Parts: sequence; structure tokens; C-alpha cells
Amino acid sequence: MTTIIAIDIGGTQLRAAVYTHDQAEPLVVKKIKTQAEEPNAFGRLVRLIEDVFPKDGKVDAVGLSSPGPIDPYAGVIMTTPNIKEWRDFPITEKLMAHFNVPCFLDNDANLACLAEWKFGAGRGHHNVLYFTISTGGGGGVIINDQLLQGHHGLAAELGHTTLQADGPLCGCGQRGHLESFSSGTGIERYVAEQLAAGRASSLERGKKNSAREISSAATEGDALSIEAYQIAGKYLGIGIANFLHAFDPSIVIFGGGVTQSRALWLDTFHASLKERVIHPKYLEGLVITTVALGDDSGLLGSRALAEMKLQK
Amino acid sequence: MTTIIAIDIGGTQLRAAVYTHDQAEPLVVKKIKTQAEEPNAFGRLVRLIEDVFPKDGKVDAVGLSSPGPIDPYAGVIMTTPNIKEWRDFPITEKLMAHFNVPCFLDNDANLACLAEWKFGAGRGHHNVLYFTISTGGGGGVIINDQLLQGHHGLAAELGHTTLQADGPLCGCGQRGHLESFSSGTGIERYVAEQLAAGRASSLERGKKNSAREISSAATEGDALSIEAYQIAGKYLGIGIANFLHAFDPSIVIFGGGVTQSRALWLDTFHASLKERVIHPKYLEGLVITTVALGDDSGLLGSRALAEMKLQK
Repeated sequence: MTTIIAIDIGGTQLRAAVYTHDQAEPLVVKKIKTQAEEPNAFGRLVRLIEDVFPKDGKVDAVGLSSPGPIDPYAGVIMTTPNIKEWRDFPITEKLMAHFNVPCFLDNDANLACLAEWKFGAGRGHHNVLYFTISTGGGGGVIINDQLLQGHHGLAAELGHTTLQADGPLCGCGQRGHLESFSSGTGIERYVAEQLAAGRASSLERGKKNSAREISSAATEGDALSIEAYQIAGKYLGIGIANFLHAFDPSIVIFGGGVTQSRALWLDTFHASLKERVIHPKYLEGLVITTVALGDDSGLLGSRALAEMKLQK
Repeated sequence: MTTIIAIDIGGTQLRAAVYTHDQAEPLVVKKIKTQAEEPNAFGRLVRLIEDVFPKDGKVDAVGLSSPGPIDPYAGVIMTTPNIKEWRDFPITEKLMAHFNVPCFLDNDANLACLAEWKFGAGRGHHNVLYFTISTGGGGGVIINDQLLQGHHGLAAELGHTTLQADGPLCGCGQRGHLESFSSGTGIERYVAEQLAAGRASSLERGKKNSAREISSAATEGDALSIEAYQIAGKYLGIGIANFLHAFDPSIVIFGGGVTQSRALWLDTFHASLKERVIHPKYLEGLVITTVALGDDSGLLGSRALAEMKLQK
């Protein structure tokens, strides 16, 4: 029986869970806040792991999920948005030194993909494309039952692929990325530009309207807000067509907060995808769905990563 | 000792070679023209294979390379530009029925990639991106020492990924694909548009200038021709940046006729790639090179495919 400690370094919570290989549910889960008054986030992480560590001392591996960019081979968090003190931070090496257990790290989008493939919407598929649409956009890919990591561990950064070389600015500083169109930030940017240009809308002018507020306004019939989500859906279709041509998966799984507003963009997305695919065969039997796992997808991804690495 | 018959269905030649597993050079190679007066291309292919078939009758597998689209799992050529009579043609099934030997098929770009990885510029690399720039643009990808084929066998159609959603028409009927900018056809299209708009140039007006003629004019200092190749290089940089973000390879291998004019686009390509990559780590140790194999790359790819399938 394999025992895994899974860690999810999230935006608001640091979570730890203990899984055994033959059980779907964790033996124990513990959460603390990611951000604290005092520094030493690593010390808090160590205490969190100690709190869940099995009394018999038997742990085969620790898996960690963190927002990127990270280096999964070196086990280094290059930067992570919510813990500023971790820069080029060799987290797996430091945890291994403390706990004397193999530790494995990958980024949150890759591990959400791995979790959906192993435990969620992607079960039984061998080629999976996962795309999360929230503040930003992130991807994960399974090819022939293997997580796509790439030479430097930086593969599947799908939000940052160019769809319009002279397009709008992305959060990363580049232009025309999928994320700059089809993310909460992209939707907010479009609405702000149109309001500034004097476009009629029920939205408040002179303040930042959130993707959620724009979604509410769209549901109440505001034409600008409806259009903003439709544009996001159109470019999502162009982006996913690119990914079908590149990876040719049998399932596309959408995650992230913007999927909750999918009634506003799904039709436009489907029309755009169908228009942009170069051969109808890409769509034959293609499943397009949303994530099946909830809040514990990060923990399950960390668990799956550790199990995958132990098998190698 | 494994004996493989490798077939390359090229634009001008149908070629067959016999390889044994312990020899780099083929035992025998035979070529005929792809197109003939009489129909029955399959009959001519069968005779070609019979001509090279070892006298002892011992063949372990036949590998075939064909321009796409093809279905590698069903062994079906959906259409191929130079043999019009082959439509949804179950070529491996028909060959197996005739020769009673396992037959395997994949498209020419995938197999050129496989050949370069196994025998050419990509040896020793585990994650390879191959892109051929000729009349069109085509891709092949190796991930963790495996050829990327995808669920329907249609992966790595990298020439047909969108870089500019409202961009120029591509040969496939879509807009703004990498191929519509960075291929012989894309270069010719740009020059034709500019000449039609009255742009000064040493190129002849009112006729179709080939990519080769434009290359010659550029070498002699024609500003429009130079610009046409630089634009191709710029969009190639944007496209390859997308592929680094998606696949994160350790080597990029360029093939195809337009690489012969690379002095005209390589600087612009490198500048564009560097500008568009979202993290400098993608470029760390990245090898960017051209193909090492010559004319027999299609044969070597077919050989490598057959050897790969026999090992599974």
C-alpha cells in the first residue's frame, strides 16, 4: 500500500491531504491560509505536513501543486503569485532534506489536467486537452496516457499562444494571446475599452467591471456584455482549433471560473471551433466538457503526480 | 535480424528500399515515377515492392510515408495530392492482403521528423519539433521519444495553426495560418499583393513570381523581395514561439526548400522568436538547426515507423 501526501499551494489556501493507493478519499485533509502576517511560508508548510504526517511515519512520496512558472525536474518554484518570498525556491529539495521522502512538483494547470484524466472527466481517454479559463488561461495535456511536461518542464502554456499577432496586450506583456481574449481579464479589458470609447451599456462607467458583473449584465440583456462573452467564445474556438491541430485529443475539458458563465459563450465557441477546424475528422467523437472534480482537484493532481513518478 | 521494406510516396517519385535492422544503408533502392499515363497506381506500387522483395521472402514489416491527410491507425490514405485515384484508400490493408506482412502508414512530415530524430539532426534529443517550409508548411513532434500522432492520427498539423485570426487566406481555405505567412506560397502571395498595389520592385509584374525567383531578387537587393522573406521569418518566429509554449522541445529542426533561402529570413526569425517567447528558459540550450538527412529522409522515416511499431 502506497501512502502519498498531496499538497495544493492555492491562491487562498495551503492544503495537505494523505492518500493511500487503494482509497479514493483522503485519510485526512488540513488547510491553512496561504498568506500570513509573518514570513517563513516554508516553515508553515513544514508544520502543515507534520500535522498530517501518518503516525507510523510511512510516506512513499509527497506531491506538490503550485501556480507557475515552476521547474518540475529541479523541483523549483521560479515565482508564484501568492508567496512572494519564494523566488527560485528549491521546494522539493528542502522538503526532502526535512522529511527524507521523495517530493515531486508540477504546476497547477498540468496537475488539474492529470487529476481530471485519472479521477475525473477524462477517465478512459488517452489524449486529453485541459484548458482553464479564469483570471488567466492555462493548459494541461495528456498524450498517450502521459503528462506533457517538455524539455524544461514548461510545456502546455496554452494561454500564452498567439492567435492575433497584433492583438490586445496580454497580462504577460505579449500581444494577442488566447488569454488576452478568452479569460476573465480579457473580457474585462474588452468591456473597459468599449466603455471608454463611449459604447452604450448598463454597466457602470469609470470603474472596473469584473467578469462576474459583466456576466450578470449579459444575463440581464446588456448588449455590450453579451458581445464581450461572445468574443471570448470566438477566440476560444480559434485557440482550441489550434490545439486540436497540434495535439488531436479525444476530449477537451474546460475548467476555471469563466466556465460558470458558459451559457454566454458556448454557442459562439462551438460555431468558431467548427469553422476553424481544417478537417471534420478532428471533431469525430470529440468530447467537449467541463471538469468533474471540485476543490480537491489540486490535491488529486498532486497525488496522481506522486503516484506517476513512483511508478517510473 | 529485422528486415523492413520502406516506401516513400513522393510528389515525383515512388521509392522503395530494403533495410535490415543492423545496417544504416539500404540493401537495395528502387524508384519509379509517382504519376503514370495508365491508372492503377496500386498495381505499380505492388510491382515496385515485388521488385525489391528479398529472395528469401523474409520481411518483417512495410512502412509507408505519404503526404496527408492520412489515417495512420486504419492505414488509410484519405487524399494525397499526386495520386488522385487514392481517396479513402485502405493501402495497408490491401498491401497486407497481397504480401501477408504487417504494414504501417504515416504522413510525410511526421515521418521526416521521426527520421531526423532517429538518424539525423535530432539524435539524442527526447523532445523534437520539426517544421518543413516548402510550398506549404508541415510539422512533426517527438515527445519523450515518442512520435506524436493524436487520437485520430491527425496531430502536429502545425502549418495550419492560426497566428492572425483575420490574416491572409491559407491554401486550406482558412485565414492567418502559419503556412499562409511562412511558406513558399505565403511569400509568393505577399509579393503578388504588393505588386498589384503598385509597389516598386525588380520583379516582373503581371506574372506569378515563384519563391525561388523572389529569393534571387532579394539576393540582388530588391527591397520588396527582401521584405517578403523577412515577414515570413517574423511569423515563423511567432509560430515557433507558440510551439515552444505548447511542446517545449530541446531542438527545432527546419526542413523544406525554403530553408535554402534561410540567409534571407533567419535573423528576422530569431529576433521574432526571442521577442515572442514568454520566458527565456524556453531558449536555454535550445538547438535550432536544419535537417541532416537528404532525399532518403522519407525512406528512413518509413523504416523508423515500421521498427517502432514492431517494438510495441
